[in-house]
Amino acid sequence: MSNKIVLLPGDGIGAEVIYAAKDILEAISKKYNKTFEFSSYDIGGVAIDNHGTPLPNETVEACKSSDAVLLGAVGGPKWDNNPSDLRPERGLLGIRKALDLYANLRPVKGFKKLLHASPLKEDIIQGSDLLIVRELTGGLYFGQPSERLDSGNAVVDTLAYTRREMERIIDKAFQSAQLRNKHLTSVDKANVLESSKLWREIVEAKKAEYPDVTVDHVLVDAAAMKLITNPTQFDVIVTENMFGDILSDEASVLTGSLGMLPSASLAEDGVGLYEPAHGSAPDIAGKGIANPIAMILSAAMMLRYSFDMNEEAQAIEDAVEVVVNQNYHTADLKNDNGKVVNTTEMTQLIVNAI
Amino acid sequence: MSNKIVLLPGDGIGAEVIYAAKDILEAISKKYNKTFEFSSYDIGGVAIDNHGTPLPNETVEACKSSDAVLLGAVGGPKWDNNPSDLRPERGLLGIRKALDLYANLRPVKGFKKLLHASPLKEDIIQGSDLLIVRELTGGLYFGQPSERLDSGNAVVDTLAYTRREMERIIDKAFQSAQLRNKHLTSVDKANVLESSKLWREIVEAKKAEYPDVTVDHVLVDAAAMKLITNPTQFDVIVTENMFGDILSDEASVLTGSLGMLPSASLAEDGVGLYEPAHGSAPDIAGKGIANPIAMILSAAMMLRYSFDMNEEAQAIEDAVEVVVNQNYHTADLKNDNGKVVNTTEMTQLIVNAI
Ligand SMILES: CC(C)[C@H](C(=O)O)[C@@H](O)C(=O)O
Ligand SMILES: CC(C)[C@H](C(=O)O)[C@@H](O)C(=O)O
Repeated sequence: MSNKIVLLPGDGIGAEVIYAAKDILEAISKKYNKTFEFSSYDIGGVAIDNHGTPLPNETVEACKSSDAVLLGAVGGPKWDNNPSDLRPERGLLGIRKALDLYANLRPVKGFKKLLHASPLKEDIIQGSDLLIVRELTGGLYFGQPSERLDSGNAVVDTLAYTRREMERIIDKAFQSAQLRNKHLTSVDKANVLESSKLWREIVEAKKAEYPDVTVDHVLVDAAAMKLITNPTQFDVIVTENMFGDILSDEASVLTGSLGMLPSASLAEDGVGLYEPAHGSAPDIAGKGIANPIAMILSAAMMLRYSFDMNEEAQAIEDAVEVVVNQNYHTADLKNDNGKVVNTTEMTQLIVNAI
Repeated sequence: MSNKIVLLPGDGIGAEVIYAAKDILEAISKKYNKTFEFSSYDIGGVAIDNHGTPLPNETVEACKSSDAVLLGAVGGPKWDNNPSDLRPERGLLGIRKALDLYANLRPVKGFKKLLHASPLKEDIIQGSDLLIVRELTGGLYFGQPSERLDSGNAVVDTLAYTRREMERIIDKAFQSAQLRNKHLTSVDKANVLESSKLWREIVEAKKAEYPDVTVDHVLVDAAAMKLITNPTQFDVIVTENMFGDILSDEASVLTGSLGMLPSASLAEDGVGLYEPAHGSAPDIAGKGIANPIAMILSAAMMLRYSFDMNEEAQAIEDAVEVVVNQNYHTADLKNDNGKVVNTTEMTQLIVNAI
């Protein structure tokens, strides 16, 4: 059985970190006698430059016929003033929609050795370990109409969901909670939005199907506070696309090591796309100093979710832990007793630990 | 010249804190020989109970013919399962719309004596002093349609703005920045939303009118991170309604003393409504232990913005500072060397300091 992986390096540090992840997967392939088949396609800014579109058809086709996709990052100042349809982000939104990647899973868990870098006091952040489940293909970022009206003197965007779209992400979140600490926090703005009211009704109705999971509802504004004042109260958080965008980025800085956080975007029964929580970091691109760990841990998530290779995924996660505990780190992190290494050195250290 | 003030105590601790603020204003009245005329009306849950609607007409009329409005808080578990139009929050949204209170100003500034209570490390929060300017009467919380479709199997909410609505809040923010450190951060999601693109165009166009203000644009997800990792980088933040709801609540916990933060909601040339940043805190309502300071500082904002009484406003703010520096605090705050007082005692201490 072959495992076809499409690599989408994208822009900025994307290529640097994705080839680091490929090296790790090759180490896994040798050690565990697995076969991975890699191919590379353009997305984002580089695709605009090479093909005149942020999401070429051949990229979509390649992803559709693959078993999993690894994505580096998209975007950069070069394309910031492009018109909407020629922006790198369109590539990302487009591939999510094309592959129906409705479920974005973003685990946030600190490394003990790195918690000193958290902006939060240690007694607040210690022990936090949460998973944000964000709906990724509906809501305000996709709804129509999204346009100027009244000769450009008014504008409208649309937050639209079907019941079915809400149900599947809420199911996914309940199931994720069952695999963790069985506590689900649903985030909405049910005191104002009609969409949030339907969301809350569905969560309430689904409780019966998952009696082992305890559920609470938190308004999005309150959730933005609680993530900071008491992050350990959360296990799994589930929310719609835009709230999830904001809250998952907020959560990503709590542990102080954004460069270490992976993510998975999953379809119902199809490919998954795995990408680091961080962006394309154009300021350090090409210098060979990017932190590859978020991308490497995203590859581990791929092994677990798309290839059912739990042992192999664990081997990567353990290797990362070993290297971090040896005080090695890239330049994005501060550690008084640390040894600063570049992207290639970090990758080699993790390969050795595997 | 009389100054007609409508008091809207609302629910939970609302009444306790609003009568504390009234005591303070009476002290100011004596000391500075000013006349304030007070009247009280129902809003929120208490209005539902007494009048069958969260916003009775007489409340709206009284506010319209007043010079300023003080609001305590609305909401509580008693009304949580009511249908949409019988929820306390509708009263708040309704009065904002009825008075066209388009500009919500939320200053966030820590008290040196209380910064130890911040969830953030001291070196990160120290020196932060920011003002969030939130658009309050447009966007997703007011747009139509907001309804179920397809026999309840789909739902839609609408984020709608006119150019004019964006222009006036952006002007207000530029003007606020001119009175502070002349640095404006505009927050949007211009890489995805059409409304955010128009927003950003308007901010760019307005720069020329305020050449002394430096401007930057930050995406909402990035802003949610930067508030935590580097809050001192901000002076004035301006954003649309929903982003402002989330970010201002996020910002409100950074200094560790939510119970101290006031807010002002202003119309173009009409009354202003002043309320604490915190909610109705049903868990401690009726116990006489609520922190009245956010409400008292909201009254100070009223003196400054609606009555042009700068000296009097400053007198209140100074008195609060004096009492805080004497280590007095209410039970919501922790302070190892502190002296815990109740609502009445705290109010009396501030009156004495005036
Ligand atoms: C680039 C942008 C469209 C994207 C989003 O908001 O979905 C990004 O912020 C993310 O969270 O993956
Ligand atoms: C109660 C609710 C409608 C309100 C809002 O979201 O506007 C509140 O959260 C606020 O921020 O003043």
